[in-house]
Amino acid sequence: MSAITKIAVSIVFVVFAFGAAYAQFAKPEDAIKYRKSVMFLISQHIKRMGAVVQGKAAYDRDAFSANADVVALLATLPWNAMMVAGTDKGDTTLSSAVFDKSAQFKKTAASFETDTATLASTAKGGDLSAIKAQFGKVVQNCKSCHTNFRKK
Amino acid sequence: MSAITKIAVSIVFVVFAFGAAYAQFAKPEDAIKYRKSVMFLISQHIKRMGAVVQGKAAYDRDAFSANADVVALLATLPWNAMMVAGTDKGDTTLSSAVFDKSAQFKKTAASFETDTATLASTAKGGDLSAIKAQFGKVVQNCKSCHTNFRKK
Repeated sequence: MSAITKIAVSIVFVVFAFGAAYAQFAKPEDAIKYRKSVMFLISQHIKRMGAVVQGKAAYDRDAFSANADVVALLATLPWNAMMVAGTDKGDTTLSSAVFDKSAQFKKTAASFETDTATLASTAKGGDLSAIKAQFGKVVQNCKSCHTNFRKK
Repeated sequence: MSAITKIAVSIVFVVFAFGAAYAQFAKPEDAIKYRKSVMFLISQHIKRMGAVVQGKAAYDRDAFSANADVVALLATLPWNAMMVAGTDKGDTTLSSAVFDKSAQFKKTAASFETDTATLASTAKGGDLSAIKAQFGKVVQNCKSCHTNFRKK
């Protein structure tokens, strides 16, 4: 595992292990704002990589890799905030399916974390074909999760 | 340097070096939303650490360290979004001092990055006295930057 992957994995472990004690939000609105903030940042960095993958921006290994590192780390953050009871109400697009199908949701979240960590590793190698393939997997995760766990 | 510090430093380098090509925002509002998202996330993780430092929450080395790692990485992200011309107008608390005193602003930003990276390293050691001292330095950075570069 690369250093970034190890760190991402250790953060995931810690967040899940100690989430009860540490991932507290002062109010439900904070949990909503937290996960929206993470998702917006992820979308911005995904777009920057997407522009390269689509040939709309020049490929630079280090810059692409930095974006992939940021996404891999952000990918570990939003899940606890999504599992706060009652936060499928209010100013949110979170579907109640997160609570009704929590095992599937956690599996989907874990898949996104794994695939973004792999993208971060792949990006360091500089093989653009491999990067494009892995980026495609990441985007499929986005779509799958939004289809199942975001309000229509 | 710890792995996390190296990664944080390399991200900083890449962001500054390739910012022109990669840190683009589709519109000024996106830059504002981006930096607000980062700052909100930082504030949430600072609060979690602050509760421990103030004795209001139990100290757990791994959980504290995970929070410190997240802050160290988030600390590298918001500066380019703050330096987008014209974004001291609109739904923002960014002061025009960011543009008028850009050298001082960059120095302040770099100080925050360094001090949060040091906190991440210190947190791994588990010496709570050292952690508290370093956390104090981080918070001083917050205050100093808000005093000088945030609208009153």
